Amino acid sequence: MKILVLHGPNLNLLGTREPGIYGTLTLAEINQRLHTLANTLGVTELRTQQSNHEGMLVDAFHDARNWANGVLINPGAYTHTSIALRDAISAVGLPVVEAHLSNVYAREAFRHHSMLAGVCVGSLCGFGYNSYALGLQALVWHIQKGA
Amino acid sequence: MKILVLHGPNLNLLGTREPGIYGTLTLAEINQRLHTLANTLGVTELRTQQSNHEGMLVDAFHDARNWANGVLINPGAYTHTSIALRDAISAVGLPVVEAHLSNVYAREAFRHHSMLAGVCVGSLCGFGYNSYALGLQALVWHIQKGA
Amino acid sequence: MKILVLHGPNLNLLGTREPGIYGTLTLAEINQRLHTLANTLGVTELRTQQSNHEGMLVDAFHDARNWANGVLINPGAYTHTSIALRDAISAVGLPVVEAHLSNVYAREAFRHHSMLAGVCVGSLCGFGYNSYALGLQALVWHIQKGA
Amino acid sequence: MKILVLHGPNLNLLGTREPGIYGTLTLAEINQRLHTLANTLGVTELRTQQSNHEGMLVDAFHDARNWANGVLINPGAYTHTSIALRDAISAVGLPVVEAHLSNVYAREAFRHHSMLAGVCVGSLCGFGYNSYALGLQALVWHIQKGA
Amino acid sequence: MKILVLHGPNLNLLGTREPGIYGTLTLAEINQRLHTLANTLGVTELRTQQSNHEGMLVDAFHDARNWANGVLINPGAYTHTSIALRDAISAVGLPVVEAHLSNVYAREAFRHHSMLAGVCVGSLCGFGYNSYALGLQALVWHIQKGA
Amino acid sequence: MKILVLHGPNLNLLGTREPGIYGTLTLAEINQRLHTLANTLGVTELRTQQSNHEGMLVDAFHDARNWANGVLINPGAYTHTSIALRDAISAVGLPVVEAHLSNVYAREAFRHHSMLAGVCVGSLCGFGYNSYALGLQALVWHIQKGA
Amino acid sequence: MKILVLHGPNLNLLGTREPGIYGTLTLAEINQRLHTLANTLGVTELRTQQSNHEGMLVDAFHDARNWANGVLINPGAYTHTSIALRDAISAVGLPVVEAHLSNVYAREAFRHHSMLAGVCVGSLCGFGYNSYALGLQALVWHIQKGA
Amino acid sequence: MKILVLHGPNLNLLGTREPGIYGTLTLAEINQRLHTLANTLGVTELRTQQSNHEGMLVDAFHDARNWANGVLINPGAYTHTSIALRDAISAVGLPVVEAHLSNVYAREAFRHHSMLAGVCVGSLCGFGYNSYALGLQALVWHIQKGA
Amino acid sequence: MKILVLHGPNLNLLGTREPGIYGTLTLAEINQRLHTLANTLGVTELRTQQSNHEGMLVDAFHDARNWANGVLINPGAYTHTSIALRDAISAVGLPVVEAHLSNVYAREAFRHHSMLAGVCVGSLCGFGYNSYALGLQALVWHIQKGA
Amino acid sequence: MKILVLHGPNLNLLGTREPGIYGTLTLAEINQRLHTLANTLGVTELRTQQSNHEGMLVDAFHDARNWANGVLINPGAYTHTSIALRDAISAVGLPVVEAHLSNVYAREAFRHHSMLAGVCVGSLCGFGYNSYALGLQALVWHIQKGA
Amino acid sequence: MKILVLHGPNLNLLGTREPGIYGTLTLAEINQRLHTLANTLGVTELRTQQSNHEGMLVDAFHDARNWANGVLINPGAYTHTSIALRDAISAVGLPVVEAHLSNVYAREAFRHHSMLAGVCVGSLCGFGYNSYALGLQALVWHIQKGA
Amino acid sequence: MKILVLHGPNLNLLGTREPGIYGTLTLAEINQRLHTLANTLGVTELRTQQSNHEGMLVDAFHDARNWANGVLINPGAYTHTSIALRDAISAVGLPVVEAHLSNVYAREAFRHHSMLAGVCVGSLCGFGYNSYALGLQALVWHIQKGA
Repeated sequence: MKILVLHGPNLNLLGTREPGIYGTLTLAEINQRLHTLANTLGVTELRTQQSNHEGMLVDAFHDARNWANGVLINPGAYTHTSIALRDAISAVGLPVVEAHLSNVYAREAFRHHSMLAGVCVGSLCGFGYNSYALGLQALVWHIQKGA
Repeated sequence: MKILVLHGPNLNLLGTREPGIYGTLTLAEINQRLHTLANTLGVTELRTQQSNHEGMLVDAFHDARNWANGVLINPGAYTHTSIALRDAISAVGLPVVEAHLSNVYAREAFRHHSMLAGVCVGSLCGFGYNSYALGLQALVWHIQKGA
Repeated sequence: MKILVLHGPNLNLLGTREPGIYGTLTLAEINQRLHTLANTLGVTELRTQQSNHEGMLVDAFHDARNWANGVLINPGAYTHTSIALRDAISAVGLPVVEAHLSNVYAREAFRHHSMLAGVCVGSLCGFGYNSYALGLQALVWHIQKGA
Repeated sequence: MKILVLHGPNLNLLGTREPGIYGTLTLAEINQRLHTLANTLGVTELRTQQSNHEGMLVDAFHDARNWANGVLINPGAYTHTSIALRDAISAVGLPVVEAHLSNVYAREAFRHHSMLAGVCVGSLCGFGYNSYALGLQALVWHIQKGA
Repeated sequence: MKILVLHGPNLNLLGTREPGIYGTLTLAEINQRLHTLANTLGVTELRTQQSNHEGMLVDAFHDARNWANGVLINPGAYTHTSIALRDAISAVGLPVVEAHLSNVYAREAFRHHSMLAGVCVGSLCGFGYNSYALGLQALVWHIQKGA
Repeated sequence: MKILVLHGPNLNLLGTREPGIYGTLTLAEINQRLHTLANTLGVTELRTQQSNHEGMLVDAFHDARNWANGVLINPGAYTHTSIALRDAISAVGLPVVEAHLSNVYAREAFRHHSMLAGVCVGSLCGFGYNSYALGLQALVWHIQKGA
Repeated sequence: MKILVLHGPNLNLLGTREPGIYGTLTLAEINQRLHTLANTLGVTELRTQQSNHEGMLVDAFHDARNWANGVLINPGAYTHTSIALRDAISAVGLPVVEAHLSNVYAREAFRHHSMLAGVCVGSLCGFGYNSYALGLQALVWHIQKGA
Repeated sequence: MKILVLHGPNLNLLGTREPGIYGTLTLAEINQRLHTLANTLGVTELRTQQSNHEGMLVDAFHDARNWANGVLINPGAYTHTSIALRDAISAVGLPVVEAHLSNVYAREAFRHHSMLAGVCVGSLCGFGYNSYALGLQALVWHIQKGA
Repeated sequence: MKILVLHGPNLNLLGTREPGIYGTLTLAEINQRLHTLANTLGVTELRTQQSNHEGMLVDAFHDARNWANGVLINPGAYTHTSIALRDAISAVGLPVVEAHLSNVYAREAFRHHSMLAGVCVGSLCGFGYNSYALGLQALVWHIQKGA
Repeated sequence: MKILVLHGPNLNLLGTREPGIYGTLTLAEINQRLHTLANTLGVTELRTQQSNHEGMLVDAFHDARNWANGVLINPGAYTHTSIALRDAISAVGLPVVEAHLSNVYAREAFRHHSMLAGVCVGSLCGFGYNSYALGLQALVWHIQKGA
Repeated sequence: MKILVLHGPNLNLLGTREPGIYGTLTLAEINQRLHTLANTLGVTELRTQQSNHEGMLVDAFHDARNWANGVLINPGAYTHTSIALRDAISAVGLPVVEAHLSNVYAREAFRHHSMLAGVCVGSLCGFGYNSYALGLQALVWHIQKGA
Repeated sequence: MKILVLHGPNLNLLGTREPGIYGTLTLAEINQRLHTLANTLGVTELRTQQSNHEGMLVDAFHDARNWANGVLINPGAYTHTSIALRDAISAVGLPVVEAHLSNVYAREAFRHHSMLAGVCVGSLCGFGYNSYALGLQALVWHIQKGA
């Protein structure tokens, strides 16, 4: 059970960036918590990666084909525009869960549509760090069910 | 910590209705599992209710003001059309989590928009029964954080 | 061969309600005629039900799973808005025919779209009482063909 | 001169529900004031009814055919979606006035459209309780003019 | 009682064309059945015509003014685009019934709108050959009622 | 308590212009009635002004800042297009009530949207002269409440 | 037979303004030609008026009720936006013909829609000065036919 | 000076077809009048042609390249849908005038858009037969100006 | 290996029609070149047909079922509007390639959508005569691959 | 170097009107500053004009043809609706710069579109008084470049 | 004759990625075939490049200005969203051909629109590897014609 | 006072790329001029950066948090599509000014909308290099005002 956690653009600023919307945890703290949680869920390897580059996120999906059983992604702004990421998810054929810190449906209208959700297993939003935690749990359960 | 779980229209047929989309668990089995889970989460009272009537779901929200700390709802078809349920959520002022068994974003376009998500704490979809389980967890965490 | 005939909102006022649009037959007279016709078509049981409540129409579909071979419905105003009824039709898996007294395409634009037609066997409109009569005939033929 | 006053979904919570938007009067207080006002306007019978059920509001319209001269309605959330209520108004043929406590045009875009206004005599919004009071006055004058 | 039955573009290929959608009856067989049915309905003359040319269908409507009491049409692809056929129906002043073999509402979105339905008596779809048979019945009843 | 009543374009023709839509009262008669009503409502000064010029209506709002406590306006055709009037209402900071003689929602679609309603206290339509009378009452009550 | 010719905004610059689109005749020359033509058509009085002010064009329509039998208007930019002018045409009840120098359908998309055409007798565009000349002829014939 | 006059679909029924909209003149009478008028305008040859077939109207345009100086067309229903006719006009390079008997802007919304107007010299509508007469005049003047 | 090449409306004017857009080759020259090319590709029979009539193009598709292995079509203006041609392609079940001389995406917006492309094997545009040549090559390869 | 500065509707209230949006400078102070700035830029004559009347702003453009080398305009509400002003800019042929005090893109959606920007040299918004100052500088540089 | 072949995002996975849609050839095999083909076409240098990064594809266009005569691109997902690539094509001024393996018009609606096609010479889709081969041929012919 | 100047995709080609739209200055010349101007404005440090990569522009914003007081950006093509850049601006909390060389409102419709303008201080377009110069001035004034 090996999992990749991908963080999209601007998430490297977490903790400092608009804490009213995104919370006060830094990305390092989130990743640390996820590693701890992964252990309790039987995940043998958890890698985390953040990029502001759409292409690097695509690359990361491609690379995950070689080692991971599933991907948890917070695609950030690319959620709403990236067909390249959508195609990457279809291409690699791994189960993917989409998670958002904030409740995107309580924000601007252009954040209400996801280009990715339709090719993911499922999605969560609005629970802050817990969107990641619950998303990881969901992904592990999904992979185990398929095993 | 008291929680209401609301099931919207047609969910009483779960297990028999389109299992390819909605899974093979019956609603009774889902409720039983949720009661078990609630115990482990420190929920002292969990009530479940299903209705095919929009008005009864509104009534249930109103009633919850008198006893519950939060509501987990799978609004089913009313997700996409019910302003009355949206207003009920705003009116009762309780934290609400929206959960869907299926990945609504992988289905017809009219299922991609939720009238309720914008006034909920957050939402999940696509994980089958686990959407309920994780949604309950998210709701409990949210209420505890506010306490 | 057992058939449920469902009448949606405001159809209880037939005969008095806008006869220029809906004709002068009362709902009781329509039901009586349908019973007579059903006999000639080999229908052993025909039940009729009218409700102004979307939820009750959903309930009626659910109940029909236990006894009926098909449903003839005039969904009235819920034609254009009810995803709950659409889901009910998909959920119960019975053949359904949609019938309208008036020619909905000669009226306001919001009546030109049906949320239900896509999951029915077929639909008719514009023939007054005969929409029911021909719809019942179509439904019986459809069921017999499948037998 | 007999009048029905209909209150739509969530209005039973008035006084407690979002007072910044809907004011601090309870529904009982509003009804009491309307009874007092009705007396001064020569209304011999004023009945008030609230329901969260679209179907019950339709039923109430149908029942009003047998005793009332007109209907004052605050359709709440059903304003924006209910073709069934629109058809009920056309079907019963009574003069109807639509009233809203809040200024719906200063709120979310989905509240700017009324399915009912086009088949009512007229409509008011934004004056809190006074929307009811002035709407009742308008309805009485309209009925008297027609007499 | 004289009736014209018009078949629009590509219907000459019936029986061979996409039988999963349109069935296995050939157009000749459909016409034969309709002649037989017409006899039982008291139709003294039934003419059938098929064309892939929008203009010829318009011509056929014009010609029908001189001998027919009504027209049953399956406009095929021209259903969705032909204002010329719509104008022809208005111009000749004969009662027209629109029939479709397949359930157009269960197919591509561009098939959900009919340019003709608004100027017809009524329409049917989804019943295969029976759409023709029931449409002919409906048309005969409509003409007899007007007589 | 000083009030400005503004009449928009074409309202100078009232009584002669399309009486089926707008009634038979002339603008002079409406103004006379409003003066009489104003006296009974404790309005110490009521000024009325009509203009077919958008700019003059803007000017009138600006001038009202210097003497009036509120404005009752029937913006006529400018209701649907004038951002300049909307800005004038925001700029002068006086309470404004929007009134229409006819039921704009029962007319052409382009009359269903108001550029002004969102920045007014509230609005009324459909009651003929009574829209003015009730609007004046609503405005006076609103100003008194704020006093 | 008395006719008002109205010229809308920016037409006072004709002859100097974008001659590639609007031609080289000045407004004075156009008016002179129209007077000459009017004589030959039996028009006893022809008045011409130009204004850049929407309100003045409305005023001019109102004034025309007192003396004219019809109005020929080139509404210029107000063609596409002015509900006030549309209402003025409906209010005065005179026959109106709409004329444009340029072919508005060969220009920007926002020039393809006229708010006025629907309440005019008819309209012309694309013929330069001849749009006026032929429009005057059309108006005179229309009035004579009604006489 | 040689001119082709083209009449589109259903215009062969003029005089009998919906005279409230299209007038009581037959197509033969219109053509006769146009021949008479053509003589007075110095047109040496005027040919008239009517077809219900889009393709034949395209053919007629092509043929006109060999003998005509311009085309006057009433495209009827093809006005709103025919890109083929639009391309034909561009292809033959002759000046074309579009004329309509009725005021298309006072009718259904789908008649408000012309696929052809943008590639014509100009257009007229609403004047009955006079739309043809004035359109012919406009075309002759346009050709003479170019000479 | 037998191929039908279909040319849609106005393509008979090639070489003379707007050479800036469509080039200077005549249709005869294009057909001649295609015959020469067909020989080198192993096509045993190549038939070419041009029509301005949508119905004739449909007829040609139907006829091709009896002799051809595939169709190369430049549908011209019917590309954007013809559901009849789309249905013909689906009905005959032959592989079809769509080719355009000009780059339709560099022209008016209404040329950017093809009703046919979705049921063809593939499409090309923008290469002048070479669109035909390469389309023929593509079609031959496609048929050979299926053999 | 002579420049006209035009201020649109409601800008005469600057300093008192919604200072949170528009700042605390009065229009007189803005004009005074612009005169001072103009001197330093080599502008020999700077005239300022404010009007709430669309027509007067059009008139001002026309008048500027006789003396000015360019126009700086804050069109206020007319930015979003006035085709008449757009046509005036095209007609007079002077370079025009559009300036806004507030950031219109951070406000209501109807303020995001300008009817004028496409025919101006350029535009600025969001810098308060500095939008005027920088706009004047830009205009002077533009005129000098053309000299 | 030097040509750049650009492959967009996810195309590095060809052969393994969704072979039902994209075929079983790997990108290396495609490039090898293209080199072979290039030789036969007189291309003296053919470079191939793949990137998942929009910016790198832009960089590659810029670099091609220094050595290439044309570019063949399969922009993959960036086809539908990248204005940056569109601008790069305009900026470098080289002839560009757009090619797609799959028939994008037979897939999701968001794949039907290309941001690039309008500034390319032409485009092809649906022929698998042959889209590249024919696109290279088309590009070479286009460059030779310009020589 | 330290300022970052960011240039988006394709701007490295300035001076050679479409000089009719973007001018003949190279990016190096623009940067040199901006450095000179910065000195006169009291800017102690001015850094300039260009990238064709959306992600690098996001990175540059993030880096600017550590040293700059504000950012001047010409986002080029990413103006219209990049939510990532919009989020970066919100995240870093620095004042940002958006500048464009060309008048984007006089070009294709897809260039009329900016994803960034709503979170910037203000924006300018259409003045060539002067858009940068005036934007730098505006930014400096804005920062000084806040100091």
